[in-house]
Amino acid sequence: MQFKRKKIPSVNELAEAIFAGNKTLLARGITLIESRRTADHTLAQELIERCLPKINKSIRIGITGVPGVGKSTFIERLGKLITGMGKKVAVLAVDPSSSVTRGSILGDKTRMLELSKDPDAFIRPSPTGESLGGVARKTRESVILCEAAGYEVILIETVGVGQSETAVHSMVDFFLLLKLAGAGDELQGIKRGIMEMADGILINKADGDNLKRAQRARAEFERALQLYPPKASGWLPKVSTCSALNNEGITELWGMIEEFIANNRDSGFFETLRREQNTNWFLQTVDERLKSSFYQHPDVKKELTKLIKKVGNNQISPFKAADLLLSSFKQN
Amino acid sequence: MQFKRKKIPSVNELAEAIFAGNKTLLARGITLIESRRTADHTLAQELIERCLPKINKSIRIGITGVPGVGKSTFIERLGKLITGMGKKVAVLAVDPSSSVTRGSILGDKTRMLELSKDPDAFIRPSPTGESLGGVARKTRESVILCEAAGYEVILIETVGVGQSETAVHSMVDFFLLLKLAGAGDELQGIKRGIMEMADGILINKADGDNLKRAQRARAEFERALQLYPPKASGWLPKVSTCSALNNEGITELWGMIEEFIANNRDSGFFETLRREQNTNWFLQTVDERLKSSFYQHPDVKKELTKLIKKVGNNQISPFKAADLLLSSFKQN
Repeated sequence: MQFKRKKIPSVNELAEAIFAGNKTLLARGITLIESRRTADHTLAQELIERCLPKINKSIRIGITGVPGVGKSTFIERLGKLITGMGKKVAVLAVDPSSSVTRGSILGDKTRMLELSKDPDAFIRPSPTGESLGGVARKTRESVILCEAAGYEVILIETVGVGQSETAVHSMVDFFLLLKLAGAGDELQGIKRGIMEMADGILINKADGDNLKRAQRARAEFERALQLYPPKASGWLPKVSTCSALNNEGITELWGMIEEFIANNRDSGFFETLRREQNTNWFLQTVDERLKSSFYQHPDVKKELTKLIKKVGNNQISPFKAADLLLSSFKQN
Repeated sequence: MQFKRKKIPSVNELAEAIFAGNKTLLARGITLIESRRTADHTLAQELIERCLPKINKSIRIGITGVPGVGKSTFIERLGKLITGMGKKVAVLAVDPSSSVTRGSILGDKTRMLELSKDPDAFIRPSPTGESLGGVARKTRESVILCEAAGYEVILIETVGVGQSETAVHSMVDFFLLLKLAGAGDELQGIKRGIMEMADGILINKADGDNLKRAQRARAEFERALQLYPPKASGWLPKVSTCSALNNEGITELWGMIEEFIANNRDSGFFETLRREQNTNWFLQTVDERLKSSFYQHPDVKKELTKLIKKVGNNQISPFKAADLLLSSFKQN
C-alpha cells in the first residue's frame, strides 16, 4: 500500500479556490496564516495581498461574554438566521487562553452542530498563540480570507481574557456584549471599559423563571448606558433580551445590528471607523515587524540571554544593558 | 541691572550634590531626566549610571486610590511618621493624566504642606508626558536619584488612570490600595486586577459616623481577598482601617508594611522581585529605544506620514505599507 502525500497548493491555487468559495482551501489558507514556520509567513502575506482587493463588503460583528453565558447557542442561532436570509456567515474567535487549553473555545464544531453543517457557514476555532497580539493579528488576517471567499457576515467571538475584547473591538463594525440576568446587581463584576465598547447588550436566557429577571436587567443596563457619553458616531447603544435556547429575540437583535449599520453607513462613520482600524493595524504591524526583526537577529538572541542574566544579578544596569544590546544590533 | 544666568551644573556636580543630599540639585537631576531635549537624554543616562551603585537600600511603596479617597492627607501622615522615625522619605507620582491637567496631582506642594517643609522629605509631582510608558520610565529613573540621595522610603502615588497601577506595581516592593467605605457593596466598581496586585488594603476616613461602615468594609475586603490565590511570596494581603484626618491607624499600617518587608527579606522574595523588575525594565528599555531610534529616523518620519494617508484611503494594504516602511529604514 502506498500513501500519497497531500499536495501543497500554491498561493495562486489557494487564492483562486478561496475566491470560488472552496471551504477546504479557505481553511488551508488560514492554516498558512497561523503557521509559525518562517517560510510560511511570506506565502501567507502573498495570499493576503491577493485577497485584499476582494474585501470590505462584509459586516464584522464582535461578540463577547463570559463562559456560561450561552455564546455558542446564540451564535448558532444568529448564524442560522443569517444563512436563512441567503447570506454567508463565518465564525472566528480570539481566545489567547486557547493556547493553553488547546482550543476549548470553538475547538470542536460540535458546539455549533447545526451551523457547522450549513453549506453557507464557515467555523474556525481561535488560532493558538503565545500572545494576544499574535492571536489577534492572525484572526484579523483570517477575516480577509473569509471576506475574499464571499462571507458577508463575520462573527468574531471572544471570552474576554485579558485585553481580548479590546483586540476584537478594534477589528469589528459592531460590538455585542452578551450577559445573563443575575441575582442582584447586574453591573457588578462587569469589566471596566466593556460598557464603553459595546454597541449593543444582549441579555440571554430570558426564558421561563428567568424572564422577569432578564427584563429587570435590561432596564438596569439601559439606565447605566445613559451615564456614558454618546458614541462618536452618534449611536446610542441598545439593550435587548433573547432566549437562544428557544430561538427567541434573535431576529430583534439582528434588527438592532441592521439599524446600526444603516445609521453608520449614512453618516459615513462606517467607512471612517474602518479607515481608523486600518491605520492602527498598519502601525501595529510596523511595531511587530520591527521587534521581530530585532529579536530574531542571531547576535541579538545570543547577547540577550547573557544580558538578562547580568541584569538579574545586578552586574549591569538595565540602561547600560539596553545600550549594549542595541549597539550590537546596529553594528551588524 | 544685570541678570545672572543660572549656572548649569555638570553631571559630576549633580551626582556629588545628590550623594550629599542636596535637595535642590536632586530636583535639577530629576528635571534632567524629565527633559525632552535629546541632548539632555545622554546626560540623564550618565547621571543615572553614576547613581546606580548607590541604590537598592530603600523600601519602595506604591499607593493607589481614586480621587477623593484622601491620598494626600494619608501620604502626609505616613511621610511624617517615617521622618519621625529618623528616616528620609521621597514622594513621587505616576499620573499620565497630569500632562493634560498640568499636574493637578501633587502639582502644588500645598497639598502636603507639613511634609513639604520637612527637611527629611522630598516631594516631586508626576512628570508630564504623552504616554504612560514615558511617565513611568521617568519616575522609575527618578527613584534611582532619590535612593542615591539617601531616601530610605520611596512612596509612589497614582490615581489609577488607565494602566498606571500596573506601571507603579512593577516598580515597588509593596503595593497599597486606598479605599473609602461606601454605602453598599464595597467591591463594586473596583478595577479588575487591582485586588490581585494589592499587598495591603487601607480603608481611609474610618472616623465619626463612618467608623462602622469602614469596619464592615474591612470585613468584606478580608473575605474577598480569601478568594484569590496566595501570592508567590506566600504573603496574605491584609486589610486595615485608618483616619488620615485624625492621624489614626497610620502606625498600624506601617507595621503591616514592616512585617511584609521582613517576611519577604527572609524568604529571599524581596530580592527575587527586584531582580524580576530589573529584567522587565531592561526589556522595556530595549523596546522603547528600538522604537524611538526607528520612528525618529528622518526617512521613517517622512515615509510614515505618506503611508498613513495611503492606508487610510485604502490605496495600500497595512502589510504592504509596513513592508515599505521597514525596508526604507533598513536601506539607510
